[in-house]
Amino acid sequence: MIRGGRTTPRRVEENTLTTYRIAVIGGTGPQGKGLGYRFAKHGHEVILGSRAAEKAEPVAAEVTERLAGVSGAGTVTGLANADAVAAADVVLLAVPYDGHDELVATLPLAGKTVISCVNPLAFDKRGAHGRVVDGGEGSAAESAQRIAPEATVVGAFHNVSAVLLWGDEDYLDEDVLVVGDVVEAKQVAMELAASVTSRVGIDAGKLRLARQLEPFTAVLISINRKYKVHSGIRVSGLGHAATE
Amino acid sequence: MIRGGRTTPRRVEENTLTTYRIAVIGGTGPQGKGLGYRFAKHGHEVILGSRAAEKAEPVAAEVTERLAGVSGAGTVTGLANADAVAAADVVLLAVPYDGHDELVATLPLAGKTVISCVNPLAFDKRGAHGRVVDGGEGSAAESAQRIAPEATVVGAFHNVSAVLLWGDEDYLDEDVLVVGDVVEAKQVAMELAASVTSRVGIDAGKLRLARQLEPFTAVLISINRKYKVHSGIRVSGLGHAATE
Repeated sequence: MIRGGRTTPRRVEENTLTTYRIAVIGGTGPQGKGLGYRFAKHGHEVILGSRAAEKAEPVAAEVTERLAGVSGAGTVTGLANADAVAAADVVLLAVPYDGHDELVATLPLAGKTVISCVNPLAFDKRGAHGRVVDGGEGSAAESAQRIAPEATVVGAFHNVSAVLLWGDEDYLDEDVLVVGDVVEAKQVAMELAASVTSRVGIDAGKLRLARQLEPFTAVLISINRKYKVHSGIRVSGLGHAATE
Repeated sequence: MIRGGRTTPRRVEENTLTTYRIAVIGGTGPQGKGLGYRFAKHGHEVILGSRAAEKAEPVAAEVTERLAGVSGAGTVTGLANADAVAAADVVLLAVPYDGHDELVATLPLAGKTVISCVNPLAFDKRGAHGRVVDGGEGSAAESAQRIAPEATVVGAFHNVSAVLLWGDEDYLDEDVLVVGDVVEAKQVAMELAASVTSRVGIDAGKLRLARQLEPFTAVLISINRKYKVHSGIRVSGLGHAATE
């Protein structure tokens, strides 16, 4: 499932991790840019995608500048979305839900491992809440899988704080929950999670559970507003079960 | 909103907490019995409700036996559901989702603070998943509020592990997320959470976000099956913002 993933080995404690070439669709938005920064910081090659290469390039330059002097950092470049996908092994969908389906349909995703962190949310005067996708029986990740049946879609990184991703802490005190129907694709996202949280992500079940992960972000947004914090999820009770 | 809540003060660190008289509907099930045990252990008076008093009484006796020698523990008794509600200030709905609406309609809930920890879940060979309530625009907690408009319903305790509730640890390493539209009612549940986790619960927003908390339990069940653990949610990033 890790199709064409390059295998430049990188030593992290006692593990060797694969270095991926990752297209970040929505790479100029806060979530995409922040995740791209974290992935590149840990040696992955990141291609920020946007509608036009000219929009992606200055953001890529900003991330590259931020990584100056970071030993072992990967490169960060900017391309138009479809070109970014064509150049990558792994595709991170980090776009707003509005227009998501139409955009996904334009991307050459066949054969790629696709990670969706798209959150279908709505906001009104009572705060954030989840949008109903397919009458409650769907999610952005499942929509992407349906639109791109020859890709392997997983859901992950829905709930990590964009502010903290771009912040100064080495790692975020959060867990990355990964859902999907193909174990090997989940493992890619679980491995990438270590760039963000220092721990591999947690296998949280089948792709349909993206219906739960995506709108949970509305709960965290509500907590953030109430307590003036940047909250995240940690899963307790795992002990060392989920650690490397 | 804390209508008729008795005010026998109990000192917990630097706070005085109210002692509540709590009816646990579904008090013979693992979640209800476990929460009832934890509440009584911390001085609250607990009335386990069941279809018939004869079913509730032996479970109340079992919990009472477990509390023997616990200094400051409250009493635990068993009654038929409607009688339990009539005798209580606070009602915990801890019933299966099947038959939930019909049962709620039979209870004299007017004027009560009602805490719903009901999880509308379904199970198939691919595991647990959320059931769609009201086309994705509802939740068990919102249904209870609609059926009992003169009660004040909040959602809380959805995700705490029944196994750990009945276990030997003094407190569960989890956070209790509380949603509701009435602050005073949320505060009751947040305060009761301290009996379970040692920390007050977290105000997680409006009642409609029960749509997110309820089916999130399916994610934790998936994690439990995968890793052979009893997982729970901790919210990171709060620092001392949400502590007493």
